[in-house]
Amino acid sequence: MTQAHPSTDVVSSGATDKLARFVSESRLEDLPAAVLHEAKRTLLNHFAAGFGGCREGAIETLLSVLVPLSGPATGQLTGRAERLDMLGAAFMNAVSSNVQDYDDTHMRTIIHPAAPIAPPLLALAQSKSAAGQPISGRDLLHALVLGVDVTCRVGNAMSPGHYARGWHITGTCGVLGAAAAAGKLLGLDTRRMTWALGSAATQAAGLVETLGFDAKSLNVGNAARGGLLAALLANKGFAGPTRPIEGQRGYLAVMSSDPDISALLDGLGRSYEISLNTYKLYPCGIVLHPVIDACLELRTRPGVRADAIKRVVVRGHPLLRQRTDRPRVSTGREAQVCLRHTVGVSLIDGAAGVAQYTDAKVADDTIRALGDRVVVEEDTSIPVEAARVTVDLVSGVSETAYIAHARGSLGRPLSDAEIEDKLQTLACLNAPACAVDRLIEAVWGLDQSPDAGKLMPLAALP
Amino acid sequence: MTQAHPSTDVVSSGATDKLARFVSESRLEDLPAAVLHEAKRTLLNHFAAGFGGCREGAIETLLSVLVPLSGPATGQLTGRAERLDMLGAAFMNAVSSNVQDYDDTHMRTIIHPAAPIAPPLLALAQSKSAAGQPISGRDLLHALVLGVDVTCRVGNAMSPGHYARGWHITGTCGVLGAAAAAGKLLGLDTRRMTWALGSAATQAAGLVETLGFDAKSLNVGNAARGGLLAALLANKGFAGPTRPIEGQRGYLAVMSSDPDISALLDGLGRSYEISLNTYKLYPCGIVLHPVIDACLELRTRPGVRADAIKRVVVRGHPLLRQRTDRPRVSTGREAQVCLRHTVGVSLIDGAAGVAQYTDAKVADDTIRALGDRVVVEEDTSIPVEAARVTVDLVSGVSETAYIAHARGSLGRPLSDAEIEDKLQTLACLNAPACAVDRLIEAVWGLDQSPDAGKLMPLAALP
Repeated sequence: MTQAHPSTDVVSSGATDKLARFVSESRLEDLPAAVLHEAKRTLLNHFAAGFGGCREGAIETLLSVLVPLSGPATGQLTGRAERLDMLGAAFMNAVSSNVQDYDDTHMRTIIHPAAPIAPPLLALAQSKSAAGQPISGRDLLHALVLGVDVTCRVGNAMSPGHYARGWHITGTCGVLGAAAAAGKLLGLDTRRMTWALGSAATQAAGLVETLGFDAKSLNVGNAARGGLLAALLANKGFAGPTRPIEGQRGYLAVMSSDPDISALLDGLGRSYEISLNTYKLYPCGIVLHPVIDACLELRTRPGVRADAIKRVVVRGHPLLRQRTDRPRVSTGREAQVCLRHTVGVSLIDGAAGVAQYTDAKVADDTIRALGDRVVVEEDTSIPVEAARVTVDLVSGVSETAYIAHARGSLGRPLSDAEIEDKLQTLACLNAPACAVDRLIEAVWGLDQSPDAGKLMPLAALP
Repeated sequence: MTQAHPSTDVVSSGATDKLARFVSESRLEDLPAAVLHEAKRTLLNHFAAGFGGCREGAIETLLSVLVPLSGPATGQLTGRAERLDMLGAAFMNAVSSNVQDYDDTHMRTIIHPAAPIAPPLLALAQSKSAAGQPISGRDLLHALVLGVDVTCRVGNAMSPGHYARGWHITGTCGVLGAAAAAGKLLGLDTRRMTWALGSAATQAAGLVETLGFDAKSLNVGNAARGGLLAALLANKGFAGPTRPIEGQRGYLAVMSSDPDISALLDGLGRSYEISLNTYKLYPCGIVLHPVIDACLELRTRPGVRADAIKRVVVRGHPLLRQRTDRPRVSTGREAQVCLRHTVGVSLIDGAAGVAQYTDAKVADDTIRALGDRVVVEEDTSIPVEAARVTVDLVSGVSETAYIAHARGSLGRPLSDAEIEDKLQTLACLNAPACAVDRLIEAVWGLDQSPDAGKLMPLAALP
């Protein structure tokens, strides 16, 4: 072929084949214990985020359409009593895990990996359990690790250009990991795994323009559903191209302007991206977290009160401005990606929890007034996980706080107990009837369970 | 906003609002009679293509996965006895209409508009009919016209760069038209239509890399399903961004490098893109059609026999080479986008029908041998709907045929009778038990029907 094309040099690497072979041939014994433990933390946080999101309006609307169209309802939903067919349950549990921006984050890519990957595995496990062919907890954890690895590696290969252009990276990369993970549970060989990745790649979708709106949920829900569908189809022989990821008009060439194939493949099987997963303490865009920590710290300084503040200057990585600089928001949902609102609640309420991202809170005049006094400055020298906030007081005094690593970041990771606490808090808030203690116990003991399908009943309403 | 971004200048036009308002406010009386007639031709050809595709392996595999997961089975399938829920039926009928490359073509964009748009409307009409709330035939035709208009206008705005980069344009643009059309049937106002377009835009997907493989079917099936889902959700208040198409990180900015907003909006309501729809005489990639006509003409020249041919030189638009220059194919599916196979069967069989695109035909040594003697030349001066074929005989004689407009193109459109004949032929081949005569009659009389839900039962197996 003589055509000039950005990905031409990528064609020869056989990236999809290498990735498919790795997933297909990976053995549970190869995984370090710390990696399996991180998979459990990822699962716990997934359920926490799902409890946090399970009462959102977007969930109710989606269920009003999907429940009447559901097939055999083998799949249960985090924090809900409704059931859906396997594909529908994968979709909905991905949505609830991601809808509040309370989910996990792979910082290098800003992917939230659990939402698109865990739900298809849990739905498949529950369906297999109902059919008398249970999937073991160890196999589910193994598949989760591999799915996160594929998702984040694909993200690494396209970052930062892909997300910056406007692709909602959790959706576009998540669908590949969902397919890989579900395909692993189904025991796909390398050829069929390649097909699954191809059927996933061609479903990759999601626009950043939808962030802050109900429509965002489609990106993550479809990634889960589409990845599971791709694996189910590949298992039945549904064929695809041999180079869906690196081919001339394949995934990387189409969705990235400068793919880095080495970021996709280097260290495959030696390091696992799930080791780099982090868990949010605050239910909002991850780039806002160091800003919150800075505001909470400033709030303890003498004289820092809302009515004494003339101006708040927030300096951060350009992504902070790009993702969160929106002057007027009208819903709690939008507020989760709004810097001004977040600064307002952090300085006034001294908190940035679920209670701070409601429609009512957005309408609060005091918070709005303080938000209007926020100035954003881009600074490429500040890493995305850091932020500097300066409060100029009417008295003429200025106070500054610099946060290098927000709470919950890799530099200051949440403890196991903090993740448990997050799960307990959110379950109490939105689904107090759920068997949360038993769920936590079941996740920590998942590698001993012969039937991972027993997990979802503990997360759903009875 | 001070960020430099390709779409910045596009933001102010309110393109989504204009498009949504047009669809929402369009009145049936505004449509010229010729446009309504073309909608019927589009529907007839849609069923023809569906009959042609309904026995394909990809269909069987998809049904083996989707039937057991189906919800309430209100939706029937072209040429099949199985039923699926509304979303599943929209998906499957889009697949069968497109799987054989026998569908309609909007030449400026190479979009095949009916496959993603007609099935959601037919599935919705059948579901509404079952619920005792029938949709009239005129309303369905109206919605089909608008859906094709939206799909092809969006395609116009991104052509030729979008498809050339590797986006499967029928999927990526079809989802918007499917949402607009289904939204029209649901009576969405402008605001909700904007939401439907947003939920569709964020689901836009499909890689050219999958063409020739089962995985391609996901692009078109998901466009139909995703568009219908977007409209159903918008109808329930599922909100989206206000500028999903022209926003800074919206559809055009993300999926196109040089969007032309005037091609999207100019003449809205004055001209309808469905007037430019064409219908294939041959079940293969549209760019191959003038090549087939040229080969069929050459075959009538003295001395042109397979064993007397030294070389076949095909000159055409660069897209011909890009889409169809694949030396070795092994399946009938791949052969549908393979120039060498197509030249082989056209010159040897004197035909390029369904019988020429089978796995067995691909394995035919005589056809392979002739295919190996085909040379492709790019010529930017030759339009995409034209081709020049020269046959060099071993005798030293050369014969050349130039086809400016293939049969079935806008320059030589199929007659109504030829479309009926295509439908009859393909139904006889794959679904002889279907009520084809009644189906044809029902489509021509659709504007008189109070219940468009009565159409699918005539296309399905009893």
